[in-house]
Amino acid sequence: MSGRTARRRVLRITLPDGGRPGNSAPRADFLAAEEPLGIRVGGTALTMTMRTPGDDLELAAGFLVSEAVVRSPADIAAIRLCDGTTCGHGGHQEAGNIADVTLSDGVSVRPGARRNFLTTSACGVCGKASIQDICALPRAAVAGDQTRFTPALLAGLPGRLRQAQRVFSRTGGLHAAGLFTADGQLIAVREDVGRHNAVDKVVGWALLNGRLPLAGCALLVSGRASFELVQKAVLAGIPLLAAVSAPSSLAVELAETTGLTLVGFLRGPTMNIYAGEHRMAA
Amino acid sequence: MSGRTARRRVLRITLPDGGRPGNSAPRADFLAAEEPLGIRVGGTALTMTMRTPGDDLELAAGFLVSEAVVRSPADIAAIRLCDGTTCGHGGHQEAGNIADVTLSDGVSVRPGARRNFLTTSACGVCGKASIQDICALPRAAVAGDQTRFTPALLAGLPGRLRQAQRVFSRTGGLHAAGLFTADGQLIAVREDVGRHNAVDKVVGWALLNGRLPLAGCALLVSGRASFELVQKAVLAGIPLLAAVSAPSSLAVELAETTGLTLVGFLRGPTMNIYAGEHRMAA
Repeated sequence: MSGRTARRRVLRITLPDGGRPGNSAPRADFLAAEEPLGIRVGGTALTMTMRTPGDDLELAAGFLVSEAVVRSPADIAAIRLCDGTTCGHGGHQEAGNIADVTLSDGVSVRPGARRNFLTTSACGVCGKASIQDICALPRAAVAGDQTRFTPALLAGLPGRLRQAQRVFSRTGGLHAAGLFTADGQLIAVREDVGRHNAVDKVVGWALLNGRLPLAGCALLVSGRASFELVQKAVLAGIPLLAAVSAPSSLAVELAETTGLTLVGFLRGPTMNIYAGEHRMAA
Repeated sequence: MSGRTARRRVLRITLPDGGRPGNSAPRADFLAAEEPLGIRVGGTALTMTMRTPGDDLELAAGFLVSEAVVRSPADIAAIRLCDGTTCGHGGHQEAGNIADVTLSDGVSVRPGARRNFLTTSACGVCGKASIQDICALPRAAVAGDQTRFTPALLAGLPGRLRQAQRVFSRTGGLHAAGLFTADGQLIAVREDVGRHNAVDKVVGWALLNGRLPLAGCALLVSGRASFELVQKAVLAGIPLLAAVSAPSSLAVELAETTGLTLVGFLRGPTMNIYAGEHRMAA
């Protein structure tokens, strides 16, 4: 596994501005590391994702929660980073870029798992079918979560997430996902070049520590709220998802149907509630 | 196919601030539409992507360029949106969310195509292997492109891209990709909830209009520059990729290896050149 940042020489160009001369000079810059992580289940390649190295087992575990493959730590018999040698594949050059998962007896990657389902059955590819699939899952039970959140509490979360981001300040290139209790306590924060990976890392952390479902929690993501992020929150049992930027139409539809509270444009003292207003306390 | 935006009622909350009272009021908001698009090749589901409806055939065509399946319009015998009825699948509820591609004789989805390769062969999952694969493709020939770009020209592109974005101003939720000539003429701009889709739409437009490879062009993307975006630019023959935000480590590595000029943090009068400095004119 490589580091989370890479130091590079870049050429910084500044154009002339208002009488000041421009210049062009080399300088050192830190980049967010991006590398592929393969996820294998039972010896078979399931998927691969471009991610920032670090918390890779949490990422793999969280991915399996998001795909409705596992729901408790007992569903995973073993999970480890493959170092090439022990996996019997001596040929590849980067150790630690494969997460190898062994599921417990009776747990399997079902053909109904969303990603497989959608990618192998294009005829089922439509938003309504996806929402129906997700709502049919027994664990999609955020609708019953009675937790309430105050706007004042939500307004403070972006600043706290940014404070907790370790890599972003150096690279400017990472998304973050932060998990908070209803009284604003930060439980976990993870960073990644991809928002979906950052969320999977948080959810995987919760799974591996026996904290699923995440009833009563709020999940804050940098950037936008997509359908996929709402799906991940719902499958982890998180009743409130907040995003710094805009949600998509299908994200709002899925939030409404599952009973998740979806907050967008959470910036300073203002925010938009797109679904699940009943969870907002006065 | 649905529209590119969806109108929704949202609850807008503003906290009290400096003596001014807060309030909470419903209002109308426009969301960026997000729906799945299945891409079928020769009757077989190849992949699906969550995208903003519109330019779907360009998206499918550009995806096939990015995956090194096609490189000229002649490689595609037919491409159309499947409306359910004509495909013989009467059951699904959303027409137009499947792009159906028929490749010409002799053209096929090769097992070496990147996405298939990486997802089905986890043992090959490492950044170096991916870069080697891409560089081995005969079309990755941006290194020979002698075009030069001035910093002043690049500095003006983000403003022009934003002006050309039609949906963003209403939703705040879309990424954009803009294709420019070396003298700054905007050739094509496409928007999507996903940056990679916006780029595929631009590349697919170029393919379908017989304009590949895009020698001498600059591609500007909102947001960050990932490995995948550099790959897409290289496979389309674009010699310069600029991003408003940060590149990842692997994006820079692939740019260096292929000879692409990679510009990051292109904001106002400043920019960082991460690879391919030789293409910057004084």
